[in-house]
Amino acid sequence: MAALVKVATVTLSDTRTEADDEGGRALRELLAAAGVELVTHQIVREEVELIRGVILALSKLEDVDAIVTTGGTGLAPRDVTLEALEALFDKPMLGFGEAFRRMSWDDVGPRAMLSNATAGVVGGRVVFALPGSPKALRLAIPALVAPILGHAVALARGRAVHHGHAAPRAGGA
Amino acid sequence: MAALVKVATVTLSDTRTEADDEGGRALRELLAAAGVELVTHQIVREEVELIRGVILALSKLEDVDAIVTTGGTGLAPRDVTLEALEALFDKPMLGFGEAFRRMSWDDVGPRAMLSNATAGVVGGRVVFALPGSPKALRLAIPALVAPILGHAVALARGRAVHHGHAAPRAGGA
Amino acid sequence: MAALVKVATVTLSDTRTEADDEGGRALRELLAAAGVELVTHQIVREEVELIRGVILALSKLEDVDAIVTTGGTGLAPRDVTLEALEALFDKPMLGFGEAFRRMSWDDVGPRAMLSNATAGVVGGRVVFALPGSPKALRLAIPALVAPILGHAVALARGRAVHHGHAAPRAGGA
Repeated sequence: MAALVKVATVTLSDTRTEADDEGGRALRELLAAAGVELVTHQIVREEVELIRGVILALSKLEDVDAIVTTGGTGLAPRDVTLEALEALFDKPMLGFGEAFRRMSWDDVGPRAMLSNATAGVVGGRVVFALPGSPKALRLAIPALVAPILGHAVALARGRAVHHGHAAPRAGGA
Repeated sequence: MAALVKVATVTLSDTRTEADDEGGRALRELLAAAGVELVTHQIVREEVELIRGVILALSKLEDVDAIVTTGGTGLAPRDVTLEALEALFDKPMLGFGEAFRRMSWDDVGPRAMLSNATAGVVGGRVVFALPGSPKALRLAIPALVAPILGHAVALARGRAVHHGHAAPRAGGA
Repeated sequence: MAALVKVATVTLSDTRTEADDEGGRALRELLAAAGVELVTHQIVREEVELIRGVILALSKLEDVDAIVTTGGTGLAPRDVTLEALEALFDKPMLGFGEAFRRMSWDDVGPRAMLSNATAGVVGGRVVFALPGSPKALRLAIPALVAPILGHAVALARGRAVHHGHAAPRAGGA
């Protein structure tokens, strides 16, 4: 199923251009390696309204199942990804940011606390917001995003009712 | 003290009936095994306003100290437990969902991230929202709910001021 | 850099006075041992508006880089620190409370779930809200606050763009 998942990617940065979009390139290589179909990529300035507009527009495209962003998840004043996305989430996926930071702690120690990586559902599409560093992406995509992507997409789209700890029958997920 | 805690249980599901309420039965067996007094059980459809109405009504019953729900914590469009409860919480218990997902990860791997299990205080009553699967309940009730139930109830009711990391005297919890 | 960080401390309690402000004393000793410059200390009653007023006022002082509070993070009705601070956060630091509770679990077990310790940015200042017990402070200050304080302050003040998992260049944190 994962091979059929169609993913849009977005680099959130005030300064990156196509020429030096290292996060975006790393993100797309990692997602391709995970067997997803890449459908579009954009570089968007870190402005709350711009980010919201792009995510909402992508979430309405029929051939987009999930959106993965890179950048803007830190504590600096211009890091506004969490603020931009939280208001869009029909439903947060509380465990994603928790798991990312827990896993990142093993890698970078207490600085893992400084990342507001997050995920949630917007208009039936799963949105993952990851840090800007290729290192963080190499941690998160294979270990966190890839293993649940197909299932999370099916759940968010209303095509599945089961998961590891959902009810075995009759929809009590 | 745990033997005196009075717990109402609720199955949140669009399809379950008394005949196949496996989550509800598992929940009540596990809570009984943990030594609580079971006071009432309902099956409620996954509608935000219905859920809120039931939880608020239960939170006003003198003989209800805590409420434990099962179901509706996933990512599917009809999973609305988190949305329904968050607006009711006078105070969230942030650590409960975190601990459930961390523990669940050891059991089901990355799919643990897909659960929006949560807990909080509503009108002086502690409310725990757990997934629908009996397997998740067998994980959560003995390891997470039972060990803190009596203490959490005393705190939420304003009958105690101490806990593991609260101030040892004079109320600086 | 940590030696230059200027920290205001606040004890949040309805009953503590200067004479028995054990949490405040422990907090200041631990922060001094971590090499920060202590700039002011107050004892504030656990009233939401009072807490907000004090934190906002401190966040406007030029010689305050960070604020650390102790108390009011539990589940009792008078514990209102989370409620008071969340509305002030320009940006939460989601990972701080998660990490505190995970680390605290190793110390006090499931009761760690009962703490709503939290952190975030208010007006460019980093605010950490810790429990009232000296034991919790001895856990949190050296292991969680001290290792990231200088970096978090630089990020929140807009003086740095790098961290463990931020982009290595060009601001895509």
